[in-house]
Amino acid sequence: MASKVFVPSRPWQEALEEFLGALRSSGYLTKLPEEEIEVTRALGRVTAAPVYAAISSPHYPAAAMDGIAVRAEITFGAGEQKPLELALGREAVVVDTGDPLPEGTDAVIMVEEVTFQDKTTAVIRRPAVPGQNVRPVGEDITAGEMLVPAHYILSPYDLGGLLAAGVTRVKVRPRPGVAILPTGTELVPPNPNPAPGEILESNGAMLAALVGQWGGTPEVYPITPDDYQLLKERLDRALGEKDLVLINAGSSAGREDYTARLVEEMGHLLTHGVATKPGKPVILGIVRDKPVIGVPGYPVSAALCAELFVKPVLYYRQGSNPPARAQVRAVLSRKIHSPLGREEFVRVRLEREGDRLIATPTSRGAATIMALARADGIVVVPRLSEGFPAGQEVMVYLLRPVPPAP
Amino acid sequence: MASKVFVPSRPWQEALEEFLGALRSSGYLTKLPEEEIEVTRALGRVTAAPVYAAISSPHYPAAAMDGIAVRAEITFGAGEQKPLELALGREAVVVDTGDPLPEGTDAVIMVEEVTFQDKTTAVIRRPAVPGQNVRPVGEDITAGEMLVPAHYILSPYDLGGLLAAGVTRVKVRPRPGVAILPTGTELVPPNPNPAPGEILESNGAMLAALVGQWGGTPEVYPITPDDYQLLKERLDRALGEKDLVLINAGSSAGREDYTARLVEEMGHLLTHGVATKPGKPVILGIVRDKPVIGVPGYPVSAALCAELFVKPVLYYRQGSNPPARAQVRAVLSRKIHSPLGREEFVRVRLEREGDRLIATPTSRGAATIMALARADGIVVVPRLSEGFPAGQEVMVYLLRPVPPAP
Repeated sequence: MASKVFVPSRPWQEALEEFLGALRSSGYLTKLPEEEIEVTRALGRVTAAPVYAAISSPHYPAAAMDGIAVRAEITFGAGEQKPLELALGREAVVVDTGDPLPEGTDAVIMVEEVTFQDKTTAVIRRPAVPGQNVRPVGEDITAGEMLVPAHYILSPYDLGGLLAAGVTRVKVRPRPGVAILPTGTELVPPNPNPAPGEILESNGAMLAALVGQWGGTPEVYPITPDDYQLLKERLDRALGEKDLVLINAGSSAGREDYTARLVEEMGHLLTHGVATKPGKPVILGIVRDKPVIGVPGYPVSAALCAELFVKPVLYYRQGSNPPARAQVRAVLSRKIHSPLGREEFVRVRLEREGDRLIATPTSRGAATIMALARADGIVVVPRLSEGFPAGQEVMVYLLRPVPPAP
Repeated sequence: MASKVFVPSRPWQEALEEFLGALRSSGYLTKLPEEEIEVTRALGRVTAAPVYAAISSPHYPAAAMDGIAVRAEITFGAGEQKPLELALGREAVVVDTGDPLPEGTDAVIMVEEVTFQDKTTAVIRRPAVPGQNVRPVGEDITAGEMLVPAHYILSPYDLGGLLAAGVTRVKVRPRPGVAILPTGTELVPPNPNPAPGEILESNGAMLAALVGQWGGTPEVYPITPDDYQLLKERLDRALGEKDLVLINAGSSAGREDYTARLVEEMGHLLTHGVATKPGKPVILGIVRDKPVIGVPGYPVSAALCAELFVKPVLYYRQGSNPPARAQVRAVLSRKIHSPLGREEFVRVRLEREGDRLIATPTSRGAATIMALARADGIVVVPRLSEGFPAGQEVMVYLLRPVPPAP
């Protein structure tokens, strides 16, 4: 038994760049799979290719109002003092909004400006101009035009636009399958009566929810006790079934060595530990050309590791860029002291005070998940800073919408 | 046949308030249903009651580091010049992070500060203080404390927190079921070869996607042709099956009269038309204590009507408040002229120019869904304004994240 000092000094940005670079080299982030699905089921999916309009919208000249369709030139003399009678069915045709313009007509006079004298005659008191109240072919969409580019996340409005253009199926990136492997002999499924030493396995559901928000399809595997061979078998199976494997390392600080050793044995270990607080014992590796991420056991560390490493991998694997979190300026209500050499992610509550936002740091323990759940945002203290004084203006990454102005 | 002038002058805010008031009076927004579900499936759901911790977290005093657990007072003399030998198993117990503190110990010395002389003896060179590297019971969560209040939308972190507190099931508001009824003889399912006059039914999927984003469970019903009796049967069935019914009125401006008449016959018609552009022919009614909303047929009008009326009803029905869209300041690149008497919602593209955002209005047709899909935000021109000059600073409601700074 020998003591082991483990103080990672690697900036997380450098670790992420190397990881993504290796995943690009292996083809994992460059040769992306695709699938074709119904447009009606494509909300939030990323396009694998540009999408072009099959037809124009409208695809025929259409009445833009309820009224009568006419050939404009026969109305040119009409006026308040010179009402013009039009023979219904021959010189004027009653149309509803959206109806195709009848052959030979080029304008629509809205119903409010028409007097129907009897069943055969309409009277107007103003001339029409050609094209009036008519939606020309392709007013919104022209057949063959690009509706959306590749690498684009489809919104509800896009679904409407694609369908209006006659596009019913679309090529998109599959949602990456993500295996989440909770490991640790001390872990038990959540229940209200654990024995001392038993730790409730709560990270699996949290990581699954985050993965789902980032476009992945999560599956939480059964808890794996501390058994090297069993963990190896589970990892092997997960690599066969999924695109990305997260090994959640239980609570012991020694546990991740286990995961690191396994990744090293089966593939390529890139990073073991980054200089962040919380979250340092993260593991980044590649096994059989697929990413394997060792996620720390403390819940706040696990959440941060997911944000820093899992989120970008999932977005890039779908051919998209990870969206940046919104930021706001706020003033610190009290000082933050932070260790030199580690980038610290400090959870804060936000309150409005006049037209300023005040940020107050909350509990900074890596295990205090409810403090994270209750936080409004994150203040980042750079690696080479010892913190900020009270009253300092800082940028806050938002975890939820900012409190509204009174 | 008589002409009919239809110029709605009612502000949408007034129509919405009356609608919500009526839904409160009928109990629809006050006697909310609830269901109990697994916490692991509760992401994004709204709590129906406060949730309290079943157990503390940690629920036993736990080692916060890998190392040795000791009774601090026996270490008080130790120093660099006065190393202290501790008998392993009796005076010092090896613990991993998360392990319960052994009976009689009150501090953990981290492994990096311990020399293991042999299998029976550990040597330390600094005293420990009581509580050092120990997570006391309830450090994160105390049994019985309120974890989240009622009317609260559960995040991934909340799921982790609830499970860590031994809570496995939670009472939430059911997702409101929403029937979407496309109506109009001219409507056909989207396809690449429509005949002139046929309109592709594209609003159903768009409305369904929006309803899903707002917490509802949408179902698009089959297209109903213009047949009063058939529409009445369908509405009757939808009211039996769902919490909210949207009748999407096809394209004809006369069609909504049909819906209005039906709502009046079967229940209570509150609003027929609001003073907005686009979107005016909206219908708000209550039938058998459930809201029925007539959504205009033009896609952009339909999207706006959903945002203004469907979204708040869905959120309030879940016991929550509709989230406000994020806003940014931008400068208009060209003037907006807008009709007096109607609140206009102008779609804009945003571009960054130095540290300013420039907003450029796009197509303003109610039918141009791709213009909405491509817009970055919305500028609202108040009812009693005729617009804004070029160069004016305006607030923009964001439809997507703002373009990042270079």
